[in-house]
Amino acid sequence: MTDKNYRSLRNRIHEIIFEADTPTGKFFDVFLMISIVASVLVVMLDSVASYREAFGEWFYVLEWFFTILFTIEYVLRIISVQRAKGYIFSFYGMVDLFSILPTYISILLPGSQYFLVIRILRVLRIFRVLKFTQYLIEVDQLRSALASSRRKITVFIFTVVTMTVIMGSLMYVVEGGKNGFTSIPKSIYWAIVTLTTVGYGDISPQTNFGQMLSAVIMIFGYGIIAVPTGIVTVELGKAANKYTTEVCRYCSREGHDKDAVHCKYCGHKLDP
Amino acid sequence: MTDKNYRSLRNRIHEIIFEADTPTGKFFDVFLMISIVASVLVVMLDSVASYREAFGEWFYVLEWFFTILFTIEYVLRIISVQRAKGYIFSFYGMVDLFSILPTYISILLPGSQYFLVIRILRVLRIFRVLKFTQYLIEVDQLRSALASSRRKITVFIFTVVTMTVIMGSLMYVVEGGKNGFTSIPKSIYWAIVTLTTVGYGDISPQTNFGQMLSAVIMIFGYGIIAVPTGIVTVELGKAANKYTTEVCRYCSREGHDKDAVHCKYCGHKLDP
Amino acid sequence: MTDKNYRSLRNRIHEIIFEADTPTGKFFDVFLMISIVASVLVVMLDSVASYREAFGEWFYVLEWFFTILFTIEYVLRIISVQRAKGYIFSFYGMVDLFSILPTYISILLPGSQYFLVIRILRVLRIFRVLKFTQYLIEVDQLRSALASSRRKITVFIFTVVTMTVIMGSLMYVVEGGKNGFTSIPKSIYWAIVTLTTVGYGDISPQTNFGQMLSAVIMIFGYGIIAVPTGIVTVELGKAANKYTTEVCRYCSREGHDKDAVHCKYCGHKLDP
Amino acid sequence: MTDKNYRSLRNRIHEIIFEADTPTGKFFDVFLMISIVASVLVVMLDSVASYREAFGEWFYVLEWFFTILFTIEYVLRIISVQRAKGYIFSFYGMVDLFSILPTYISILLPGSQYFLVIRILRVLRIFRVLKFTQYLIEVDQLRSALASSRRKITVFIFTVVTMTVIMGSLMYVVEGGKNGFTSIPKSIYWAIVTLTTVGYGDISPQTNFGQMLSAVIMIFGYGIIAVPTGIVTVELGKAANKYTTEVCRYCSREGHDKDAVHCKYCGHKLDP
Repeated sequence: MTDKNYRSLRNRIHEIIFEADTPTGKFFDVFLMISIVASVLVVMLDSVASYREAFGEWFYVLEWFFTILFTIEYVLRIISVQRAKGYIFSFYGMVDLFSILPTYISILLPGSQYFLVIRILRVLRIFRVLKFTQYLIEVDQLRSALASSRRKITVFIFTVVTMTVIMGSLMYVVEGGKNGFTSIPKSIYWAIVTLTTVGYGDISPQTNFGQMLSAVIMIFGYGIIAVPTGIVTVELGKAANKYTTEVCRYCSREGHDKDAVHCKYCGHKLDP
Repeated sequence: MTDKNYRSLRNRIHEIIFEADTPTGKFFDVFLMISIVASVLVVMLDSVASYREAFGEWFYVLEWFFTILFTIEYVLRIISVQRAKGYIFSFYGMVDLFSILPTYISILLPGSQYFLVIRILRVLRIFRVLKFTQYLIEVDQLRSALASSRRKITVFIFTVVTMTVIMGSLMYVVEGGKNGFTSIPKSIYWAIVTLTTVGYGDISPQTNFGQMLSAVIMIFGYGIIAVPTGIVTVELGKAANKYTTEVCRYCSREGHDKDAVHCKYCGHKLDP
Repeated sequence: MTDKNYRSLRNRIHEIIFEADTPTGKFFDVFLMISIVASVLVVMLDSVASYREAFGEWFYVLEWFFTILFTIEYVLRIISVQRAKGYIFSFYGMVDLFSILPTYISILLPGSQYFLVIRILRVLRIFRVLKFTQYLIEVDQLRSALASSRRKITVFIFTVVTMTVIMGSLMYVVEGGKNGFTSIPKSIYWAIVTLTTVGYGDISPQTNFGQMLSAVIMIFGYGIIAVPTGIVTVELGKAANKYTTEVCRYCSREGHDKDAVHCKYCGHKLDP
Repeated sequence: MTDKNYRSLRNRIHEIIFEADTPTGKFFDVFLMISIVASVLVVMLDSVASYREAFGEWFYVLEWFFTILFTIEYVLRIISVQRAKGYIFSFYGMVDLFSILPTYISILLPGSQYFLVIRILRVLRIFRVLKFTQYLIEVDQLRSALASSRRKITVFIFTVVTMTVIMGSLMYVVEGGKNGFTSIPKSIYWAIVTLTTVGYGDISPQTNFGQMLSAVIMIFGYGIIAVPTGIVTVELGKAANKYTTEVCRYCSREGHDKDAVHCKYCGHKLDP
């Protein structure tokens, strides 16, 4: 193979794997998506005792099939990309590596439960496929709204955690160990379960004063859920508006809708 | 009956069944609504053991009464509508058919439990009555707001599901089978129960590390509920603004902003 | 007493009871508020077995004390008001009557538990005191926002109820009586408990398919909570804006803040 | 030490402790933050029986170490501040005092559990560190949004509490003591647990009518969570707009809208 042929081949591979404009590229994306979902399902079903007993060997074969498939894909990605190092140490590069590594390591170190979690991380690869679709703008808007509300959310979580620490300690003293509030950390766990309105019921206040106190926490928690919602809504509103700004060439006013053809103020045609 | 008389009868039936402008049409709507609610109540109460024992025969008679009533209505709809095929294969056409079919089939194939669910689907017919009321605009606004937030909601659910897969697997390894986390699918079920703040308590973390981890999931879940709310609020805000405007006298299109002076489609001046 | 004196006394009583501008009127409001809260507390504490044993006689005396107090107030209200009939059959008139009636009836018909609920309704009287405070505008804004979103909320609740009927029936068939889903009404109760994210855990799915199905319901319920929030937020936003609209006398533009002294567009002074 | 040296030393201490502009000041903030978190962790872990047994003596030593550290800091704050009295009786001054007092008192009055809660209050001191960071604006926006929605939230909580009182009493009569609704206060506790969608499941309705009634409460509670969210969102939206504007060059007041041309307070033209 000449150098030129090799380069053209590399470009072709890059086009198929990293882009979704060609039919082959689209087919590759769909095929990859199905493979990822199937391989995650194998890991999941393999954890069910009755299924492992019945189909354990099939799961083993399938796991190796997907591992080899993803290994080939990983090698092709390294070859076809311009800066291999950049890809390898990127977020998706790491996820790709972690998707195949556990199976190989399991030959040397059999039986480690913890590889299972690493193996399941391959579910994250599905977001890469999303990157090449029309959902890109939506993802972007959501991401930018969350990014701009980052600080407010931090302050909010900070306040919530502080409150649960104080409330938990108070309930530890009020209820005591015999009612399940055996330590401050456990009482804080209860406070979080209550404030977030999850309410398992594995620990619940038994004394009158404890129930009064937790009623206050609940109403409080019910109220402050409004805060992050308000924050994100305001930011999303801004993000949504950002995508509809076009200035009229004649009267220089903005604020037109996406589907506007004419300026709504002066009536001149807008640029396409 | 002459052909003309037949056609006039057909139109009359169509008017009564499909429209709600005439007193007879309105009466038909109210009568239909009561029949639907009553027939659904019969199916519901028939499932309560003590009621079935006491009133089982009455329920049987009533079920046949409503089935024959709905059958007559179904036939009249097919007759009176212009394109019978279009109606039969429409959503409401299918619901209408499914409302009567199970009772007839139950003569041939007695005792199948699954017909019950099909029979209860007749509750959906109630939305048709809603179609002819002043709630039309409200339904439309809600629908359009949900439709425009469709993609963002998809991305959101996608993220939530991915997160529950990872969190569930992690908890499966951390807590293990003896605390109820017997498999990854079951642990994912737990993660969904926790993240959505439902919190049954049938499975709950017992180890210290597991409780810490689930506290993080809870606070996270508490925070991200803000996202769909923000999305829908922004879209509803837009939808609400859309409906406060007028129709352009020249191009007859609507959907102008409140502060618009010119039609954004054709550029003609709007009436003040 | 001359007729004139009587009328002046009537006006004086009306001023004290129905208005809050005079010091006596304000004092009456505060005194009434404390009496209402105290009388409700008596009813509540009387229901606690240990307290009734210890202080039962005190509660009995206090109940009669408050009943006579509220009876005097009720009579004074009827006397002082212009149209006695209008007051008696108004919402608050009925609440006032129901606050005193149960105690008198209990002499004739002792022991009826159901009077207790009627007696506790006197807690509603507290809202009347609220009517004369600076919270009036806030209550008004909230009420108008809820009133304008009435139809959308109705459509929403309609949809939610329909969904729980279908989901409940499906779970009844899938899970069956042995897992707690003993009838369709009970299964619908479970569906509502789940969809609203309350999640008692008294009934919870046990089969794999049932858990999958309820996971879908949960994510769905988590998503649609966005809808009423969006509706109310949009309406509150409108209501909030309503209270800041003043048109500039010079440039005729509106949208000024509540604390604005000058028009923000042309700089002219706004009317006070 | 001369008086001048003393004053300069005082200023230097003030700069380090109260400000965060100098490297030493920043280092002090970080060091203080770590100390606070560590000392809170000691209190928390000391409450876990197994840890206290193993490391009890270490915790005792660490508690005294942090107490002496915070005492030195407290004294330095009093010395360096201009108006010592103002600081001592301020919110943070009280928190600072309460952080050290329990340990000293525990020598005189050993074993009181209640000091534990006071000791944990030192977690509040962490908010002071936050005061000197870039989060200041975010905290301010959140605070002002919550402050302006104060009255509406009060009305909302008022309504919610009234509703739970009525609902709780109704359920007390309907369900009765044998199903866990042993008294009205306990039934109100249940109503709050249900309305806020926490749903422990320690008390849950058993009768058909009780389940129907609580289903209504749940759907209601699901709906009204929209209200505080709407309130806070609207206020946050306003707060966000307020902070995007400039200061008037003439009257030096801020808080102008984005589209303002003139200062709304003094009427002078704003800079473009």
